[in-house]
This record gives sequence, C-alpha cells and structure tokens, in this order.
Amino acid sequence: MLKLYLTPGTCSQASHIALEEAGAVYEAESIDFSRQQQRSPDFMRINPKGRVPALVTNRGVITESPAILAHIGQNFPDTPIAVPEDPFEFARIQSFNAYLCSTVHVAHAHKRRGSRWADDPAVIEAMTLKVASNMSDCFELIETTMLSGPWVMGEAYSIADPYLFTFTSWLEGDGVDPRRFPKVYEHSQRMAERPAVKKVLSVAVG
Amino acid sequence: MLKLYLTPGTCSQASHIALEEAGAVYEAESIDFSRQQQRSPDFMRINPKGRVPALVTNRGVITESPAILAHIGQNFPDTPIAVPEDPFEFARIQSFNAYLCSTVHVAHAHKRRGSRWADDPAVIEAMTLKVASNMSDCFELIETTMLSGPWVMGEAYSIADPYLFTFTSWLEGDGVDPRRFPKVYEHSQRMAERPAVKKVLSVAVG
Repeated sequence: MLKLYLTPGTCSQASHIALEEAGAVYEAESIDFSRQQQRSPDFMRINPKGRVPALVTNRGVITESPAILAHIGQNFPDTPIAVPEDPFEFARIQSFNAYLCSTVHVAHAHKRRGSRWADDPAVIEAMTLKVASNMSDCFELIETTMLSGPWVMGEAYSIADPYLFTFTSWLEGDGVDPRRFPKVYEHSQRMAERPAVKKVLSVAVG
Repeated sequence: MLKLYLTPGTCSQASHIALEEAGAVYEAESIDFSRQQQRSPDFMRINPKGRVPALVTNRGVITESPAILAHIGQNFPDTPIAVPEDPFEFARIQSFNAYLCSTVHVAHAHKRRGSRWADDPAVIEAMTLKVASNMSDCFELIETTMLSGPWVMGEAYSIADPYLFTFTSWLEGDGVDPRRFPKVYEHSQRMAERPAVKKVLSVAVG
C-alpha cells in the first residue's frame, strides 16, 4: 500500500490532495517539524534529505513533489488527476510544476528557512524583506501568463492544480493579498469546493 | 524544427546535450547574459521568465530544465536519452532532476544571483559564504544516496546524466573540489568522453 509522509500546510499537501483525487488506497503519516521529526533517524532512513513529501511505494520511495505528482498521475489513469497522454500537454504541466518547486517555493522559503543559505541571524532576517515582492512577482507571472483557467492547464484539471492551490495558501502569510490575482484567487476558491481538497484540509485541521 | 535557447555553462547545457544524444534536428541560439539579452523584449516574448533554457517546438514553448529534458526523452524513443517506460524508473529520474533544480541549483545561485533574494549588497555578499558548504552537502548526498553508477540511474544512461554533469562542472567555481566525490567525479569524466558532450562543449567554446 502507498504511504505518504507529509506535514500539513507544506508543499506535501499537494501530493495528499492528488492521492485523494486518484481514489488511491494509502496511508498518511504526519511529520512534526516543531519536534524536528524530519531529522529523526527513522525518517532519515526513508528520506535522507529530511524533507516532506516522501511517497513509499511497493517499488521504493519517491521524493520531490513534481516527481510524486507525476507518478500518481501516471498510475491512476481515468481519474481527475491522470496525466495527459499528449507529451506536449504533459510537458506544460511539468514546466508549471518545475517553476513552482524551483522558483516560487524558494522565494517563499526565504521567509522561514533562511538558515538554509546563511548562518548569520542578521542576514537570515534580511532575507525575509524581499519575500513579499518576490512572491508577488511570481504570482503576477502565473496570473498573466500561466494560469489558463478555470484550471491551471485550461478545461482539464491536472496535478498542477493541487500544487498551485497549496502555494496560493501561503500568500497571506507571506504578506501578499491573494485577491490581487483574480484568476489565482478564483482558482483557489474553486479548489476549496472539491471533495478531495475538503477531505485533506479537514484531516489537517482535525 | 526544434529551437533551443541556451547560454553555455548554465543549466541549459543539459538540454543541449540531451538534444545531441537524441540525434534531434534542432537550432541553438545563445542568449548573452552579459548583455542582459535574457531580458530583451524579443526573448521575453519567448520566455516571460527571462531565463534559459527555452525549447521552441511546433506546439509551443517549453521552459524549465526538468520539463524540457523529460520532453526530449519522451519524444526520442530508442535513443540513449529515451525515458524508461517503467513509471517507477521514470519517477526516480524525475525525483533526481527535481532535486537538482529545486535544491542544488538554488544553493549554487546564492553565489552569483543573490540579488534574486535581497537588495542590500552586504546581504547579497553574505549569502555567498554558505555556497561551498551547501554545494558540498548536496553532492555528499548525491554521492552516497543517489548516484548508482556508472550512470545516475545505474546501468541505463538517462536525462539525469547531462543534468548532473552540468552541475558537477560548477563545483570548482563554487569552491568545492569535485574529487572529494569519487563517483560523481568519475561520472563527469565518463560523460566528457561521450560524443554528444564533446560536441556541445566544443560549440560552447568555439
């Protein structure tokens, strides 16, 4: 059986939603960052990077959100989360997800994970100053050039949608009003109505 | 015909090598960062992110290295760069490439692209201090837990190989001796012998 290691509110939420959309039979285990559980010997054996998400399959462990999302999409055809057979449409999804993981996530991480890139507390503090404007620039680009609507890729829902939804939920905490980006904001409201999303959020809160 | 926008020495080199490995018919155009060409109106119309690589196909433009690499791999079966049909093996490749783009590239970028995350010159300068140790940590993880050998995924060459090779070439400039990681170092030497790699490097120099 599939097992997803996750932490509510982090990017791992996207993989969690994808599993629900796929109707997958899976187990979920929460890793508590406040207790540094992601660095525990038990978890480091599962993912030596000490990060979530990590998806345990009967073949081995898969890490990194874009890889997990595409894998779920490939393994659950005929579900809302299935990856398209058209290689170009798949590449569009992959490009969107790679932008989120390599640029938007990194912009966000300078708020609370600055110690990854500096040791001096003053420098770590200074790195938080540009988070709001960077996140704003990223979402401006998503709003104007990437989000087709109603879903990220257009009429077809895809693995890009739960991933964007998760990042949109970070905007307010990063000092950016999501209402500045009408298409993104409506997308997040549309997502919140999906049963798979409601289920994941209720588990996260409960 | 495919057209790749690239800048020698950047991550776009991986896509360039992949096109050569695929035996693709393509055009390559170099974008000169020293003249801020990546921000020119002409190039911003191709990639509004103002980054390389960008692959122009007859269906549209694909950006982000992991997406371009997987797309080349899917479109050129029966070549050394073809993606495996086994979804789990594909997920392993995707996971490796996502780690490079989201963590290793970002660690490296704090050396010369610090202005992405801070405006204060002193903070930008301070961010360079941790680059060597971060790159070292990343490559320690690659050496000990990810690089199967002789190629990244084991016996089968894949799109992960030109991507790793490109990152390995950054180590010395980042203050890390690549010889500290014997498997990685041997991999880069093995790569340098491939005709596709020789061709790309000779074009880059010439």
